[in-house]
Amino acid sequence: MLFKNITILDENFIARKNMYVGIKDDTIDYIDKVEPESDYGDSYDGKGKLLMSGFFNAHAHTPMTLLRGYAENLSLQDWLTKKIFPFEDKLNGNAVSAGTLLGIAESLKFGIVSTSDMYYFCDDMAKAVLESGVKNNLSRGVVNFSEDDIDLLPGFQETKHLFETFHNEGNGRLKVDISLHAEYTSNPKTAEHLAKYAVKTGANVHVHVSETESEHNECKRKYGMTPVRYLNHCGIFDTKATAAHCVWLEGEDFDILADQGVTVASCPVSNLKLASGVCNVPLLLSKGVSVAIGTDSVSSNNSLNMIEEMKFFAVANKGKQFDPTLVTPVDALRAATFAGAKSQGRNDCGRLSQGFKADLIVLDLSSPNMHPVHDMATNIVYSASGSDVLLTMVDGRVLYRNGEYLTIDLEKVIHDVEKETGRILGELK
Amino acid sequence: MLFKNITILDENFIARKNMYVGIKDDTIDYIDKVEPESDYGDSYDGKGKLLMSGFFNAHAHTPMTLLRGYAENLSLQDWLTKKIFPFEDKLNGNAVSAGTLLGIAESLKFGIVSTSDMYYFCDDMAKAVLESGVKNNLSRGVVNFSEDDIDLLPGFQETKHLFETFHNEGNGRLKVDISLHAEYTSNPKTAEHLAKYAVKTGANVHVHVSETESEHNECKRKYGMTPVRYLNHCGIFDTKATAAHCVWLEGEDFDILADQGVTVASCPVSNLKLASGVCNVPLLLSKGVSVAIGTDSVSSNNSLNMIEEMKFFAVANKGKQFDPTLVTPVDALRAATFAGAKSQGRNDCGRLSQGFKADLIVLDLSSPNMHPVHDMATNIVYSASGSDVLLTMVDGRVLYRNGEYLTIDLEKVIHDVEKETGRILGELK
Repeated sequence: MLFKNITILDENFIARKNMYVGIKDDTIDYIDKVEPESDYGDSYDGKGKLLMSGFFNAHAHTPMTLLRGYAENLSLQDWLTKKIFPFEDKLNGNAVSAGTLLGIAESLKFGIVSTSDMYYFCDDMAKAVLESGVKNNLSRGVVNFSEDDIDLLPGFQETKHLFETFHNEGNGRLKVDISLHAEYTSNPKTAEHLAKYAVKTGANVHVHVSETESEHNECKRKYGMTPVRYLNHCGIFDTKATAAHCVWLEGEDFDILADQGVTVASCPVSNLKLASGVCNVPLLLSKGVSVAIGTDSVSSNNSLNMIEEMKFFAVANKGKQFDPTLVTPVDALRAATFAGAKSQGRNDCGRLSQGFKADLIVLDLSSPNMHPVHDMATNIVYSASGSDVLLTMVDGRVLYRNGEYLTIDLEKVIHDVEKETGRILGELK
Repeated sequence: MLFKNITILDENFIARKNMYVGIKDDTIDYIDKVEPESDYGDSYDGKGKLLMSGFFNAHAHTPMTLLRGYAENLSLQDWLTKKIFPFEDKLNGNAVSAGTLLGIAESLKFGIVSTSDMYYFCDDMAKAVLESGVKNNLSRGVVNFSEDDIDLLPGFQETKHLFETFHNEGNGRLKVDISLHAEYTSNPKTAEHLAKYAVKTGANVHVHVSETESEHNECKRKYGMTPVRYLNHCGIFDTKATAAHCVWLEGEDFDILADQGVTVASCPVSNLKLASGVCNVPLLLSKGVSVAIGTDSVSSNNSLNMIEEMKFFAVANKGKQFDPTLVTPVDALRAATFAGAKSQGRNDCGRLSQGFKADLIVLDLSSPNMHPVHDMATNIVYSASGSDVLLTMVDGRVLYRNGEYLTIDLEKVIHDVEKETGRILGELK
């Protein structure tokens, strides 16, 4: 495809008008002010439109679309024990498949090209990812308090099966990560075993860290260490790791994350809505930690709207720390694109740059909310609406365009979602 | 117009499927499950769509669309003195007219039917409101430190002229309010004079209150009273009043606002982004204060996206007070519709209810982000995207539909906005 006469947001988040961008197979092959001589196939009229990197969602639980708006206005404890856990107990492969496809459709609508997911029924999720054409770093969240042989633990066996079956499938679109669900849902033996498996396979690690104050303090009471220090001690950060949330970090936690090259996946909407707090993004950035953005699950967000998430990401710390100079729109854009791709081990993704993968989105610039343009990056983060995304392309393939899905039968997916949620609600009665 | 087979969000924020809603002139005339016998003219196929009250923006400075993204990542003092004031000093009627029309177009896109505006060059704003068909409570913000005769003050003379010329024009669509800009930009003599004029004319009052900590504390130092107590002392709350921001309220401030029937216009995005803080909405609501939502200006927001604003409104206090049960989606919907209308003295607006004005919007329910539906009000506030608004109607007249404006030449407006911002930036060089 050749994007013609389009405004681009380049790799430095600077807008450049009237550009030509040629896509060859899955790669950005040409970027210039001059029309290329090579034939790139279909052309796309870029008038009134902006081309930029798609978004990389660094922390999600995609099938939880099924629980959108199901558990609201509750304390965290009631939310989990009275609503989320009983509902999840009724899930099966069909339900997870339908929920995953719905979440992928929503992700594409909001310009997300790749997602780091932690959940279960992962075979069904893997199939949905491969069929729909998106990218995903998939992991089975391992929870374990027992002292049994970890090799025999179903969660670990599923992780191994998943890694051996699906890692790097779909021309590398699907990667399998290793997930320790969290410190507070496991014991040291489990953490150490998963860490060793990750080192052995070279897989990425994905883990929840210091999301709530009580979890953070309980870890200190139990082990005499913060969750970051404890996990580091267990070897969890010995490979490339993504630590989700990190709301209650303190002291040397920031330095450990920096030294170990851990990416923090900040989830500002979920953290505010569940009343967990605000991740100290400015301090992380000043320490040199790579910070990406996660939507967390739809049951706590309740959407996968990355443009909205960037706005929350940029303003949450301004408001909390009473300093309007903290976290710029470019910080937010970097987190939502390149830092997310990097956290997924996709170093050739997340930049509109020659030779990078063609994971791109087109934004509508003709709307009143995108005028005037004093600064394009600022307009994208603060003034665009999620639904201003007109086209989403992954590995050079258009998956979403003007409300239509090219690889997903949305009507069927919605039908399946309604059937499965109806079944579950019926069983819970 | 007859909306057929449409889901409605009724006056209690409950979704009802397969309804018929008939509009006669400017009024909601019919709501039932049964198709009406009367002829309501054009019919609208409601399949996959939701009809609800439009949004009432209780605090804005619409022409400041011109400054979208112009002053970012700065301290409040630098933001105002280095960027906003010098730019505003170059404004003229043409610029304000173009900026107002751009803001009205953006408001319609995001489902806003009526706005409480405080600015200057108000004649140009009034014309834009009347021509475009929207509703507006317009006011000239009065700033004055002198002890001169207030009757001769240009700001007061403009207020009087505005009230006498435009109040209740456009069949009541345009109302003129009386604005004291704020305690910190005026003296007691000015506040008292405006208060008396408001009592005499029966006009609404619109005022900024306790937006920042320094403004709040400086007032206490100067007068020995909080801004709320001071303004009440000056008579500013003797008529129907809207107090914008109210971030730093304390002690009996909450009771004074309740006793005087003042509406608080909370502006969560602007307050976070400018690092002012978070308005204590739960305490206001528990005291019986009517709380509406304002976008504030585009130079501090940077959009007029009321669906996004509702999400910030609902989660900001959850996050700040570490309590996820605070501020429900229904609280947010009530604030964005009926409470806003009430603050504007529009008691026949802001509800999808028979006999109320037909100020309505249609939302797309077919998108993946609106499924499944465990609770429709929750989906609207947390899962919808601003651009999911398909149609906006004011007083029974469709002004926006599927991206098209029926009363605004958007291309011309954008051209005028670019011309005027270009002129101003040139003069500032």
